[in-house]
Amino acid sequence: MKKVASFKWPVRIYYEDTDSGGVVYYANYLKYMERARTEWLRNFDIDQPYLQEKHGVVFAVRSVALEYLKPARFNDLLQVTVILKRCGKASMEFEQNISRVIKPAKYSLELNDNGELLCEGRIKIACVDAVTFKPRSIPQSVLGEIADEC
Amino acid sequence: MKKVASFKWPVRIYYEDTDSGGVVYYANYLKYMERARTEWLRNFDIDQPYLQEKHGVVFAVRSVALEYLKPARFNDLLQVTVILKRCGKASMEFEQNISRVIKPAKYSLELNDNGELLCEGRIKIACVDAVTFKPRSIPQSVLGEIADEC
Amino acid sequence: MKKVASFKWPVRIYYEDTDSGGVVYYANYLKYMERARTEWLRNFDIDQPYLQEKHGVVFAVRSVALEYLKPARFNDLLQVTVILKRCGKASMEFEQNISRVIKPAKYSLELNDNGELLCEGRIKIACVDAVTFKPRSIPQSVLGEIADEC
Amino acid sequence: MKKVASFKWPVRIYYEDTDSGGVVYYANYLKYMERARTEWLRNFDIDQPYLQEKHGVVFAVRSVALEYLKPARFNDLLQVTVILKRCGKASMEFEQNISRVIKPAKYSLELNDNGELLCEGRIKIACVDAVTFKPRSIPQSVLGEIADEC
Repeated sequence: MKKVASFKWPVRIYYEDTDSGGVVYYANYLKYMERARTEWLRNFDIDQPYLQEKHGVVFAVRSVALEYLKPARFNDLLQVTVILKRCGKASMEFEQNISRVIKPAKYSLELNDNGELLCEGRIKIACVDAVTFKPRSIPQSVLGEIADEC
Repeated sequence: MKKVASFKWPVRIYYEDTDSGGVVYYANYLKYMERARTEWLRNFDIDQPYLQEKHGVVFAVRSVALEYLKPARFNDLLQVTVILKRCGKASMEFEQNISRVIKPAKYSLELNDNGELLCEGRIKIACVDAVTFKPRSIPQSVLGEIADEC
Repeated sequence: MKKVASFKWPVRIYYEDTDSGGVVYYANYLKYMERARTEWLRNFDIDQPYLQEKHGVVFAVRSVALEYLKPARFNDLLQVTVILKRCGKASMEFEQNISRVIKPAKYSLELNDNGELLCEGRIKIACVDAVTFKPRSIPQSVLGEIADEC
Repeated sequence: MKKVASFKWPVRIYYEDTDSGGVVYYANYLKYMERARTEWLRNFDIDQPYLQEKHGVVFAVRSVALEYLKPARFNDLLQVTVILKRCGKASMEFEQNISRVIKPAKYSLELNDNGELLCEGRIKIACVDAVTFKPRSIPQSVLGEIADEC
């Protein structure tokens, strides 16, 4: 019943991520948050292609709200958190932070607790029909897995 | 003194914009909104590379809030609006909508008034030092141009 | 029967296109070439979603070869050419160049002949089954339209 | 003096990587190859921001040639190889393959030898001045590190 500690996922910054301002292009933080949510689902053994094939549903982003505090740069190692704040019958709401790992281990993606907060996000996800994009209930198998999280 | 009508910019959707859900990848709407803001600035003769070179400042995104109402798809013609809602000494706040043009002229990017609203956004921009990313005043030449807008 | 002059499409460079080297990220030139090919098809009234729905085929990229001569930068206006070099039963081969427009009209995407060549590309496209991605014949309606081009 | 085995880097496929054809967007393979080259350099303790700051040089892509054999899809785990084929005073040439890992360990990026070849690439890199983008010699410290590779 105890809430699990927040899930974390590492993201390394490459040239593809940056823009000519010399920093990470702000729209890309949404990608990093989604990578982390995808891994969070995988962590619960939730297989999105299976959900689509078997239940005909996909998870669609309904709204995003991001605050940018400090810029990330080429070669930075970031860590992205995933916290499920609320979970309804057909929607989920996540709180996600991105911070820069200070003194990362050089050749690994290992995370540590020395972080500098760069970006805070709030993401609302809806379970929708894979074809019509109309709201659908989250499959019971998924709710069973993540119930303890909300 | 009269407020100018809202600025509009066309965006055509290509494969690069879509994802395997069959619709436009949601992070990309931020790019379309920025394309429109860039053209809005150009429309006022505001030259961003000049501002960086001459004044050492760039415009950085401080926060974004987007609501996704309906998905766009491959080949759609979208129109993106730009309304400056608030303008401070060192920041600007924009309201931007994205709608799908219904029955676009086949070979042109001409916009019409038949739109279907897809996405609503609120974007806060800060004027910052191009090197340190610390807040800086918006150059007077820029404020002079956009003053009537806010 | 005369070969039509090469098709050209304008591309404006925004922050999303650049990287922290201060120039356009090289992978993005592939996107600009595809935008131009998509408009080239539209120019012949060839509707890709219709081809997929009616004939069950899509055009897939089989190979690309690009030479990068000079970098493009933020705010540049580029022009992308499309020349169909070869056209088989199930494939097409394109030659595409990207050049920077010198002294573009400030507020328009109008192209002129003053260009500086930035990138040369050769792109092979296959007509494939939309589900299995196995080779399929190019629909006759398409071949009829583009026959004069090769 | 013995040639080291080829360097490999894992890449997980997310929605951001795919297009509405249901497969990975072909331009993105260039990003995966660059991620692997960046990690290959890191593996030799070669620090690109340091090279730029200390020597004023960056590595720029001069040409790419890619063959696409089979498509990758959402959730696939890919492995990208890096082989330095040739190394001159001011340039390097890489051979890079991308394959899909068959039966990957579910929650890790661990690679195995069961691969299905998806894409073959040849990438030429030039060492250039970070400002003018004119050719420059590769710094001796870099050549010393990678000499055994070519």
